Amino acid sequence: MTEQPKPENLSDGVKSEQEAYLRAVEATMSEFFAQQRTLLTAISHDALPLLEAIESLSSGGKRLRALLSYWGWRGAGGDSILERSAPTPIIRAGAALELFQSAALIHDDIIDRSDTRRGKPSVHKKFETQHIQNSWVGDTFNYGLTGGIIAGDLCLSWSEQMFSSIGEGALSGTEARNIFDTMRTEVMAGQYLDVLSEVIPVETPENALARAHRVIQYKSAKYSCEHPLVLGGALALTAIAHQDHPILGKYRAFGLPLGEGFQLRDDELGVFGEPSATGKPAGDDIREGKRTVLIALTTQNISAEDRRMLEGALGNPELTNQQISKIRELMIDSGTLEHVEELIAQKSEAVDTALHALPVSEPIRCALSAIAAKALHRKA
Amino acid sequence: MTEQPKPENLSDGVKSEQEAYLRAVEATMSEFFAQQRTLLTAISHDALPLLEAIESLSSGGKRLRALLSYWGWRGAGGDSILERSAPTPIIRAGAALELFQSAALIHDDIIDRSDTRRGKPSVHKKFETQHIQNSWVGDTFNYGLTGGIIAGDLCLSWSEQMFSSIGEGALSGTEARNIFDTMRTEVMAGQYLDVLSEVIPVETPENALARAHRVIQYKSAKYSCEHPLVLGGALALTAIAHQDHPILGKYRAFGLPLGEGFQLRDDELGVFGEPSATGKPAGDDIREGKRTVLIALTTQNISAEDRRMLEGALGNPELTNQQISKIRELMIDSGTLEHVEELIAQKSEAVDTALHALPVSEPIRCALSAIAAKALHRKA
Repeated sequence: MTEQPKPENLSDGVKSEQEAYLRAVEATMSEFFAQQRTLLTAISHDALPLLEAIESLSSGGKRLRALLSYWGWRGAGGDSILERSAPTPIIRAGAALELFQSAALIHDDIIDRSDTRRGKPSVHKKFETQHIQNSWVGDTFNYGLTGGIIAGDLCLSWSEQMFSSIGEGALSGTEARNIFDTMRTEVMAGQYLDVLSEVIPVETPENALARAHRVIQYKSAKYSCEHPLVLGGALALTAIAHQDHPILGKYRAFGLPLGEGFQLRDDELGVFGEPSATGKPAGDDIREGKRTVLIALTTQNISAEDRRMLEGALGNPELTNQQISKIRELMIDSGTLEHVEELIAQKSEAVDTALHALPVSEPIRCALSAIAAKALHRKA
Repeated sequence: MTEQPKPENLSDGVKSEQEAYLRAVEATMSEFFAQQRTLLTAISHDALPLLEAIESLSSGGKRLRALLSYWGWRGAGGDSILERSAPTPIIRAGAALELFQSAALIHDDIIDRSDTRRGKPSVHKKFETQHIQNSWVGDTFNYGLTGGIIAGDLCLSWSEQMFSSIGEGALSGTEARNIFDTMRTEVMAGQYLDVLSEVIPVETPENALARAHRVIQYKSAKYSCEHPLVLGGALALTAIAHQDHPILGKYRAFGLPLGEGFQLRDDELGVFGEPSATGKPAGDDIREGKRTVLIALTTQNISAEDRRMLEGALGNPELTNQQISKIRELMIDSGTLEHVEELIAQKSEAVDTALHALPVSEPIRCALSAIAAKALHRKA
């Protein structure tokens, strides 16, 4: 990816277009939250913590999915955000994707027993804190769990409400609707397979690796990169009544390896990331027992004794930082970290090749290249 | 309700129309599940327990919401299911409502820590059993919780996917879409308020009663009766391009008290219901600590000493059947059970009055009357 422009090298035109789009997404979400505040207030002020938890979580994040959807839209001939009349479908689609991501994070954090998200308490932890601070009765854990489950459900419903507000001609029965629906089912199935891989007995390293790759693909790669890009493209093509355009296939060839590389980087950051940058404790993935590709490869490359140690450590929330350090060393000394870096470099090359084959104008290629560089070389 | 026809007195025409509709809803759901099976199988066979849990849960139930939507549709001029071309919008709307109900039940059972549903293990319990039977590693409770959260999320997404498949002209930007969206937010807010009422300190009986009535309204009455009926009506009116018809307001006047009465009966069954009929353990609501109208009224009508006993018993999962019996006696002896019966009778009268004011043909009035009688006088 060395020849590719860094984000700071984006032309001023692309940069201001992208910023204008993100502002429009924020504004659309704010307006939506204000409407929901009115509805919830009419039911009871007591229901507002649900909204506040969702709104606070949704104000952070990299907006990777919204950005990919926008450039997918632009590359397929959709109007620029800088045109006189704002392209509502892609603003709403971006907001819907970000709301879906918030919903997924809220329930993920319950499932992974993560106390922090983006450097702040996770949503179920916020509800636990509310329970403690008010000296309420009953079980604090249960109350936090309940608040988190309901907030995630509400956010999932709102994501759909936002998406369907794109409206008729642009959506119904189209490829875009189909992608949004498939994406949801795939990411939930991927999430389930991920958890399953934490509870089934130790497999052969080959099976474990194949399983970890499948989880990456469905839980993350297609969802985080491929589908948003293709969704944006499909929305633009519907707007110009041209659904079977070959660009969608080319988007997939770019989006899938990008998503795979993005997740491999995520796996690395889950073990080697700086807590100050990731907003999560060091080595969190190991304490949570995540069966990542990094872990599967490590088990292939270490002695039987070290493998037993690693298996015993995975999913132990009490691991000390020293134990985490020992596992990090194993990953480095066995060459596994380097191996994962090579895999990311391979994905990066596939991304690069696909990027150059995209039938889009240079500013759009440049924007997608910057997003890819950021996703593959991020620190958080 | 005594002058109203019992379900068995439905005319053969109405009865066979209703049965044909329910068959069409089942067939649509089966076809949908088959499509999802194909999609999930392509991801991994291991993901199929999600589908199986949802499909099994969705095959039971009273179908109250689907039936109300159908007769709401018919009363507002929608085509009969017996016409040559099946009225797809209302079949899909009914299936979407039933899928939404399944999703709500899956997460409710986690939140309420209910082990059984419709006489079978609840969904998270099924995942716990899977964990135990396979001797998988890690925490059984956590695995069950995770499977339940993800299955509920998937079912919620599928409900929406089903609803949006109603398609363009019939839906987008219409009153029907608005009702479906509002319904989801209201029921989730109501669910949160319900749980909140279990953890906040003991209130004055008046406040507790007002709170319990608000929960009934949002968590149950509007969701289970008012919205489905109006949704069906709105879909029919959109089909004939006539959205502001006064029938929708008249449906609300019928649906809201019906839903309130339905839930008051539910509260009663939660304490006095026969386990063999309800499919739930006796006195389950007391062990779960539910703050129902029945409970709020009881606290108003008993001595301070009995009130302390009741407050201590609510939410205690270890209560013996003898302790439950003692609370039942309190409810009877204090006249509270009778009071709730009176409230149900009042709702029943309001339902009756609204029913007679509906501008619908006699067979449709008869069908709605039978549904109301069943909802208000059920044993399960």
